Amino acid sequence: KMLGRVLCTVLLVGVFPSPAEASQGHISVVLLGATGDLAKKYLWQGLFQLYMDQVSSGHSFTFHGAARAALEPGQRLMFEVLKKLSCPPDEAPNRCAVLKDQFLKLSQYHQLKTAENYTALNREIETLLRQEGLEEAGRIFYFSVPPFAYTEIARHINSSCRPPPGAWLRVVLEKPFGHDLESAQQLAAELAGFFREDEMFRVDHYLGKQAVAHILPFRDQNRQFLDPIWNRHHVERVEVVLKETVDAKGRTSFYEQYGVIRDVLQNHLTEALMFLIMELPANVSSAHQVVQHKLQAFQSLWGLERSSAVLGQYQAYDSQVQEELQEARGYVSTTPTFAGVLIRSDSLRWEGVPFLLTSGKALDERVGYARVLFKNRAYCTQSGTLRDAGHSQCKPKQIIFYFGHGALNTPAVLVSRNLFQPVMPEDSWKEAEARPDLHIFGQPLSDFYMYSPVKERDAYSALISNIYHGRKDFFITTENLLASWGFWTPLLDSTSRQPPRLYPGGMENQQLLDFEMVSGGVAFTVAEPAELLNPSMQMPSDFRAIQAKFRHSPLVSAWAEDLISQLASDMEEAAVRSVARSGQFHLALSGGSSPVVLFQRLARHHYSFPWRSTHVWLVDERCVPLTDSESNFLSLHRHLLQSVRVPYFNIHPMPVHLNQRLCVEEDKGTELYAKDIVALVANASFDLVLLGVGTDGHTASLFPRSENGLEGAPTVVLTESPVKPHQRMSLSLPLINRARQVFVLVLGKGKHDITTLLSRVGHEPRKWPISGVSPSSGQLVWYVDYEALLG
Amino acid sequence: KMLGRVLCTVLLVGVFPSPAEASQGHISVVLLGATGDLAKKYLWQGLFQLYMDQVSSGHSFTFHGAARAALEPGQRLMFEVLKKLSCPPDEAPNRCAVLKDQFLKLSQYHQLKTAENYTALNREIETLLRQEGLEEAGRIFYFSVPPFAYTEIARHINSSCRPPPGAWLRVVLEKPFGHDLESAQQLAAELAGFFREDEMFRVDHYLGKQAVAHILPFRDQNRQFLDPIWNRHHVERVEVVLKETVDAKGRTSFYEQYGVIRDVLQNHLTEALMFLIMELPANVSSAHQVVQHKLQAFQSLWGLERSSAVLGQYQAYDSQVQEELQEARGYVSTTPTFAGVLIRSDSLRWEGVPFLLTSGKALDERVGYARVLFKNRAYCTQSGTLRDAGHSQCKPKQIIFYFGHGALNTPAVLVSRNLFQPVMPEDSWKEAEARPDLHIFGQPLSDFYMYSPVKERDAYSALISNIYHGRKDFFITTENLLASWGFWTPLLDSTSRQPPRLYPGGMENQQLLDFEMVSGGVAFTVAEPAELLNPSMQMPSDFRAIQAKFRHSPLVSAWAEDLISQLASDMEEAAVRSVARSGQFHLALSGGSSPVVLFQRLARHHYSFPWRSTHVWLVDERCVPLTDSESNFLSLHRHLLQSVRVPYFNIHPMPVHLNQRLCVEEDKGTELYAKDIVALVANASFDLVLLGVGTDGHTASLFPRSENGLEGAPTVVLTESPVKPHQRMSLSLPLINRARQVFVLVLGKGKHDITTLLSRVGHEPRKWPISGVSPSSGQLVWYVDYEALLG
Repeated sequence: KMLGRVLCTVLLVGVFPSPAEASQGHISVVLLGATGDLAKKYLWQGLFQLYMDQVSSGHSFTFHGAARAALEPGQRLMFEVLKKLSCPPDEAPNRCAVLKDQFLKLSQYHQLKTAENYTALNREIETLLRQEGLEEAGRIFYFSVPPFAYTEIARHINSSCRPPPGAWLRVVLEKPFGHDLESAQQLAAELAGFFREDEMFRVDHYLGKQAVAHILPFRDQNRQFLDPIWNRHHVERVEVVLKETVDAKGRTSFYEQYGVIRDVLQNHLTEALMFLIMELPANVSSAHQVVQHKLQAFQSLWGLERSSAVLGQYQAYDSQVQEELQEARGYVSTTPTFAGVLIRSDSLRWEGVPFLLTSGKALDERVGYARVLFKNRAYCTQSGTLRDAGHSQCKPKQIIFYFGHGALNTPAVLVSRNLFQPVMPEDSWKEAEARPDLHIFGQPLSDFYMYSPVKERDAYSALISNIYHGRKDFFITTENLLASWGFWTPLLDSTSRQPPRLYPGGMENQQLLDFEMVSGGVAFTVAEPAELLNPSMQMPSDFRAIQAKFRHSPLVSAWAEDLISQLASDMEEAAVRSVARSGQFHLALSGGSSPVVLFQRLARHHYSFPWRSTHVWLVDERCVPLTDSESNFLSLHRHLLQSVRVPYFNIHPMPVHLNQRLCVEEDKGTELYAKDIVALVANASFDLVLLGVGTDGHTASLFPRSENGLEGAPTVVLTESPVKPHQRMSLSLPLINRARQVFVLVLGKGKHDITTLLSRVGHEPRKWPISGVSPSSGQLVWYVDYEALLG
Repeated sequence: KMLGRVLCTVLLVGVFPSPAEASQGHISVVLLGATGDLAKKYLWQGLFQLYMDQVSSGHSFTFHGAARAALEPGQRLMFEVLKKLSCPPDEAPNRCAVLKDQFLKLSQYHQLKTAENYTALNREIETLLRQEGLEEAGRIFYFSVPPFAYTEIARHINSSCRPPPGAWLRVVLEKPFGHDLESAQQLAAELAGFFREDEMFRVDHYLGKQAVAHILPFRDQNRQFLDPIWNRHHVERVEVVLKETVDAKGRTSFYEQYGVIRDVLQNHLTEALMFLIMELPANVSSAHQVVQHKLQAFQSLWGLERSSAVLGQYQAYDSQVQEELQEARGYVSTTPTFAGVLIRSDSLRWEGVPFLLTSGKALDERVGYARVLFKNRAYCTQSGTLRDAGHSQCKPKQIIFYFGHGALNTPAVLVSRNLFQPVMPEDSWKEAEARPDLHIFGQPLSDFYMYSPVKERDAYSALISNIYHGRKDFFITTENLLASWGFWTPLLDSTSRQPPRLYPGGMENQQLLDFEMVSGGVAFTVAEPAELLNPSMQMPSDFRAIQAKFRHSPLVSAWAEDLISQLASDMEEAAVRSVARSGQFHLALSGGSSPVVLFQRLARHHYSFPWRSTHVWLVDERCVPLTDSESNFLSLHRHLLQSVRVPYFNIHPMPVHLNQRLCVEEDKGTELYAKDIVALVANASFDLVLLGVGTDGHTASLFPRSENGLEGAPTVVLTESPVKPHQRMSLSLPLINRARQVFVLVLGKGKHDITTLLSRVGHEPRKWPISGVSPSSGQLVWYVDYEALLG
């Protein structure tokens, strides 16, 4: 009540514009978690900055701190924070003192706990506005609270605190937004029950960092220079890095749940990377265009696999967790505190360019940057000493967005002088002073055009200003968030059991965390010293693929990813052997979902596969056009053939679509395919046939009790599937059994029952067609993952 | 006669082994050009070295210097040279003096001018051997004479100086071996009339340089380390360089005919490159295997184009030529004294890896090396200062075969310590001493394992020893020679009219000769300073493609290479525009030889062509299987499709081969193709049709007076060609005329008559089908090269 009165007094002395001037209306800012760490450290200061910046904007403001604490202690706590607000150095001290005084008078504390509290807050805002004759422009609710509290608060705001029609509502959410795709989807769905997408502002404070926020404008303003070189032909690699010297001490209760990938890579580093690699929108200020292009960039990324990352954990982490979380002495955490991740895109622009994301705690220095390193395409005819003079084309070429800290200790944009002199907005970026002593990435600073902000501004001030201006492009939309989780979750899943490499921390890490790209993934460069190995870390994922027998034939079994990797290697070996023997490799591949990961692995990791000498045949096909999404061939093309160099003549889709109709017997597609096989494959004996198994025991498109293909002459047949599309074309069992090698791939829990059954039954192809696979003079190998084998 | 007597005396004192010991037989070495520069400088010393090395081998020797000079003056000149022969530093002076004395006694001079002279020489050798009771092992004839003398000498040797059956003949030839493919073929054919291939030893003295000769053994002995990294995934680039400080002064009469490419690149640098890039033979000492693998490597190289090279000429060259060759003041030479050439291979191993060959006179230093630079695949987590310690994976990785001179001033093999410690043969290579002051390629020598020869040996000594041992792998076989000329001749032809960049020479060159890789070729990095531009250098090849009209349609004309380059750019532009408009680009391509260069240009230079959205159709096809060498589609596949990423579904070969027979009407191939066109191409209007013109005025496979396809409905037709294979399938004129754009490409002198004719005649498709091309609502553009246009 007292505050209310103060407010009214203030109004008289001109803090609010008079009703006539107040054409822009009133904005109420509600800071939930007003006495928490983030609010203390950044948010109140950011709100004060907003007030200072916008005091003459025509908008009037009130600031409502809120928390679950009762009025009196909450008020006291909050005003202790507010008293410490500081003015920026470039603000006149007098003006600042007056503005701070006004800001304090416009701020009040509310207890927000029950539904009634929210109703009361709403009523107070309404009353005040009515009393002052102010139009309401909008309300900002800033959620600086733990995520478990989101839903309840959201419900209350939606039911009790919405502004009247014509005024906007903006709710500001702080990470974490879930901890994987599923939880993020769930949280997003809940919030969607209360707020419209355009009402939600999810903060990633990296988007408020000046060097990050300038990536897109930089690309836009320097299109003329970047257009020819911003692609795989010129870019050697992209690095996005956040190194910290601090560790997780005091924060392990949070950190142990998240780890470095969820804490830093999934959000901050990914967002910075996206700004670098997305196609540049025609209008970089259009939030809609930016998001659409960002989503497209996400779609172009290859899926992450376990081998895409190296993980580390500083040695003291376990004991910190044991102490802070009261875990037992023997407790061992697999939460990574360091990660190096290789990301690749198959876009035309970036195909083959490695994107390296790296972050860790307890490292040798604190620094953050995004760096685009260009290829050296020059040959310098003069000898080395002369070459270093001037802006030789043989010096490294790079563009660096320097987030802050590190050697420079300022946000900065650096462009190698042998690239171009960039266009920079003069009002916000200035050329930095020469610092002849400094080197960065092995080069003297004088090798760069370097710019730093005219006025350094912390990320939260920038973000609060963007919320005020409704600039949604600086926030994470739901689609964006889910795309990012969708991208990261497979890596989180596949590495959850993996013991991270232990590192001592700080300078002592030496080269222990260096990593390099090897066959499509990354690996630490130096072997792990024995004294750091954690003896208790023997996880199932570390088992070598076990070798045994299944149905009297060799069995290879492992977790799915290892199994696929082994199978792909065995296929390459078979191919190389076959080409050495006969000059060709005739490979027949099955459709379905299991082989997709295999196809991708072959395309992405097996550079030495003799594709030019390989003929690719189909084991079976659905009777749909080849470009139909149900087509086995389409899937094979998308995941394998379009990425490797099989000659056109060596690709043999099944002729299911002749005379513009599908699998009509008189079009003789099966005979055509059989004739092609006889004409090209010696003795109609494929070098390798890859099969799968259905839950009903079918293989190829040979289903239980099929009339065709289970016996008789080796040929190609039309069959009927119990599931749609019913019509199929398939190699027959006798034809399959002529092969030199047959590999059967069985993946997943869903195949456990049939796997168990098959381990017991004999040769009964009419009941279970797969049981009829028995190469007459070739070799059969089973590749069954642990889930299918062990359930 | 006196020498003869001396010889006999010597025999008595044991220079020749006694007949009983002489189990290995006698070798006569005949040095033709015994008093010439090369003989004085290297060859006699090499022969003396051979004698010292082999005196106890069981072979006996005589050395016959020969020249066209009469006996007395020749003898005097020759013995002046012989007296100056020196012993190697590690030879005991006493022994050396004795051996030198013996060597002189075994040497004699012969005048070889007339047929009688050769007969006499032969008689002398026979007589000597008979007198001494020696078996003849073989004869070596070393041609140290100008190439114009080769044929005559070869004829004489073949007719008069062949050794008796059972003894071998080895003739040693010095470059130049021709000055282009044709002259080399001619010379080779002439020599083949006199000598068998196994009798000829063509010297490239680079193959005798220790660092060059060790490339293959190094690759062989370090297979375990190199196998995983000796490929495009790990190698960044390969450089082979020979820089000289001297200029051509005093040698311009030779140099003006040859220039740097013929003098150095075609032979020395190419041979070194081949040792680096050829597939490693199972047995690297097998001359046969080495040559076969080398020839394969030649076949894998992309053809050179004008844009593959940058050429320079030191400024003083013209005046030197004017002076030495008595040319007029205004004489301007286009002979290059500097060249940087980009070579690429399409082998699986090297695809995409640039090979840079560089050589020049009047440069800043004298040095030669072959350098394999590896990609940096590592990320070093520690900051830069720490990173430089030890053998970090982030330091450059390279292997250098250092031919000599330069900073090291010794032949050497260097391997970065962060790669591996190489296996080196201890008897011939030793680890070099530390030289902490020295840097090479920007790194301290301490970053390398460095080896230098235990005993430095000049190239000619090594080669003479190899001739003696019959090691043909150190010499250039005819096939090898012709492959190399076949590779270089197109570049020589296409640059013969091109004015080289002038450079001042020495250190003053600064960055004037630096070059970089741009869109598949190379270009100088810095613009040519105006004061160096040669005002008289305005060659026809510099003309911009001229624009005019032909048959009322736009005409683009230029020299063939520029024309193709313009056409390819225009096609890319059309494709980009079409994809922007409709999401697709329907391109119909003609067969024949003219478009091959175009296809290659598109595949190699047009990285941004939207292939994924392009449909490729055939304008016409020969009725042969698609994999027949006559097939238009096969040629299109080989030169374009296999190198770009057109989706399988977007490739539309003509169905000339149905039901295992060719172009049978009732198989309805033409209808099938027409239906496909209607189904996929909006309005059956191709976005771009590329046509050619035959000397008879045919286009597509529409021949004069054809019954089908010249009029009527827009469709696909079967036609008859006057030349084999007679049966063809073709788009009809009315279908072609529906296209949005039609480009007609006409190349070469052979098309001059029809071009002239077409410029005069009207619309007469029955006489000249090409005259019926007239898009009803599209655009027609003629691309005619100067040769076709101007004859």
